[in-house]
Amino acid sequence: MENLETPAALVDLERVDANLRRVDAYARQHGLRWRPHTKTHKVPVLAELQVRAGASGVTVATPHEAEVMSAASSDVFLAYPPVGAARLERLMRLSAHVQLSVGLDSREVLEGLSAAAKKAGRTVGVLVEMDLGMRRVGVQQPAEAVALARAIQAAEAVEYRGVTFYPGHVRAPVASQDSALNAVSVRLAEFLEVLSSAGLRPQVVSGGSTPTLWRSHEVHGLTEIRPGVNILNDRNSAAVGACAWEDCAYSVLATVVSTTVPGQAVIDAGAKALAKEEGLAPEGGYGALLDRPDVVLRSLSEEHGLLDLSKTEWRPRVGDRVRVVPNHVCVSVNLHERLWAVRKGAVEQAWAITGRGWGAP
Amino acid sequence: MENLETPAALVDLERVDANLRRVDAYARQHGLRWRPHTKTHKVPVLAELQVRAGASGVTVATPHEAEVMSAASSDVFLAYPPVGAARLERLMRLSAHVQLSVGLDSREVLEGLSAAAKKAGRTVGVLVEMDLGMRRVGVQQPAEAVALARAIQAAEAVEYRGVTFYPGHVRAPVASQDSALNAVSVRLAEFLEVLSSAGLRPQVVSGGSTPTLWRSHEVHGLTEIRPGVNILNDRNSAAVGACAWEDCAYSVLATVVSTTVPGQAVIDAGAKALAKEEGLAPEGGYGALLDRPDVVLRSLSEEHGLLDLSKTEWRPRVGDRVRVVPNHVCVSVNLHERLWAVRKGAVEQAWAITGRGWGAP
Repeated sequence: MENLETPAALVDLERVDANLRRVDAYARQHGLRWRPHTKTHKVPVLAELQVRAGASGVTVATPHEAEVMSAASSDVFLAYPPVGAARLERLMRLSAHVQLSVGLDSREVLEGLSAAAKKAGRTVGVLVEMDLGMRRVGVQQPAEAVALARAIQAAEAVEYRGVTFYPGHVRAPVASQDSALNAVSVRLAEFLEVLSSAGLRPQVVSGGSTPTLWRSHEVHGLTEIRPGVNILNDRNSAAVGACAWEDCAYSVLATVVSTTVPGQAVIDAGAKALAKEEGLAPEGGYGALLDRPDVVLRSLSEEHGLLDLSKTEWRPRVGDRVRVVPNHVCVSVNLHERLWAVRKGAVEQAWAITGRGWGAP
Repeated sequence: MENLETPAALVDLERVDANLRRVDAYARQHGLRWRPHTKTHKVPVLAELQVRAGASGVTVATPHEAEVMSAASSDVFLAYPPVGAARLERLMRLSAHVQLSVGLDSREVLEGLSAAAKKAGRTVGVLVEMDLGMRRVGVQQPAEAVALARAIQAAEAVEYRGVTFYPGHVRAPVASQDSALNAVSVRLAEFLEVLSSAGLRPQVVSGGSTPTLWRSHEVHGLTEIRPGVNILNDRNSAAVGACAWEDCAYSVLATVVSTTVPGQAVIDAGAKALAKEEGLAPEGGYGALLDRPDVVLRSLSEEHGLLDLSKTEWRPRVGDRVRVVPNHVCVSVNLHERLWAVRKGAVEQAWAITGRGWGAP
């Protein structure tokens, strides 16, 4: 690890294994399937580890992620409405063995998908995306879900599979999620009841996030969870209690490059290695040191991270190396070209992050 | 442009040309050299356009940017302290025709650089980095600048060239920068006087940013400016009055993918295409539409951007395309694999953004 050029994105393989065992045990205990969102890591080898640990398929956000992740699982759910000829054509060129399903919330998207699937001679599973409080995408009312499910049934080359949602608005600490989770449950029950009365009982009810992961069994009717962050975890996950600090498997190795300003040290990991995203930790900042979580990354510019030394006696020197856990792992991984897989402090493998970006044009 | 898969990073070539002509005219008028910071675009062809327009060299932040940009100019300034064997070795492998200079603020960095340069048989120019109020890097006191300059003179394989600073803390609107710019000028004068008295009068006094660009001539003693953003501009530059909205040459083409939630529209450009960075525009948000700047990007998740429709009568439909100007262009460009160079609405060229990341390991 001493020879790595910094900043370098590290993944601790033992922690990954423990994180995977934990989510699989939880899913089994509660009779849930888990279909991890691979946008977090964008690495097929990590998706393979997820499948081997018990995942029933993978979730992706983009056609390129679908292309890359279909090497790890033939059961691919695109949790994003595919709009536009370029995206649809790429999806339809996925290997024929891939069982593709898609979440969508409008007839416009359905019509495009149906036409593309028909032209390609494929059948694509479709889940109706519901808004259960996130207010981002999803049909707003149960009656709209019924209408869209009927339109799916009537359309060619697609199959109605069920419903999907993302409770991304529930970001309170795990122990304080009661009222928000209850609201999600109540709203989901309304959708399921209206759909069932209309003869459209969903086979798949897919939802969940990392902050709500361990309380997914309280959302009645759920059949499948889709945690993304959980395999690696991050400062936000730890801040809400969805993992312990010791479960953080991702960090960015960085080098101290300047200590001239009293009370701080500057590292060579900035917004282009960690991503500048406000977080959920009460101490603020954009990340914290893996081995010294009281040292917070107070400020970030493109290539500079400023460590706040006000809560520590530690005084780093130029050339010292540190490991930073960012607030949000997904947007940090996305800035790197490769992940260095580490076991007991030694680099074991280097993985290209092949699901990044758009892929070959 | 209709065939591009979205999100797609676009650069308007006519606006680039106008931006370059403007900065060169300003620099000539005031007898300043300009050495643009190429971390903004990371594309050698754009650096070539800058050199052809009158730039006297290029500025870079990383060894990989230095490798890539040395194709456009042999006069390369690394405005970042190179720490660690990996970074130093890469710098020393730059083609022998490259005149490399480096800004640094400590003896530790100087010693590493001197040893590496000696071993490689090169001579590297060195500028003493001063902190003139930014409180990020840089020596704090004139006496430290003197001591470091003397250490540079005494070290092997390096040459003392002058001083450098970055006034990144001056982010007020251009018309309201008087007191902040005056403080920078006063502090710079103190450094220059002490250095001159010690027989260390700097040949190069390099500083400047895009927000302060057009007032650089008010900072007495400056010989060189290093604007980065200015070639492309962004919502922040326009917000502080460092450019007109019509000077924004960079935008991200995106597609509307959902309109189910009243008062908003969702586009397929999120934090992984635009970067989630708080900005300087009083309206808040993470960006605005190029052709409808009253439509603000209110919220960003990884693959979703939420357009706020509360200030407009415009009601987009699923499939419509828009162009977004992000708050901060540098961190958005860094998320893309290629820039689509556009003239009069048609794609003219595609440029790989080769300065991104770490390059070949």
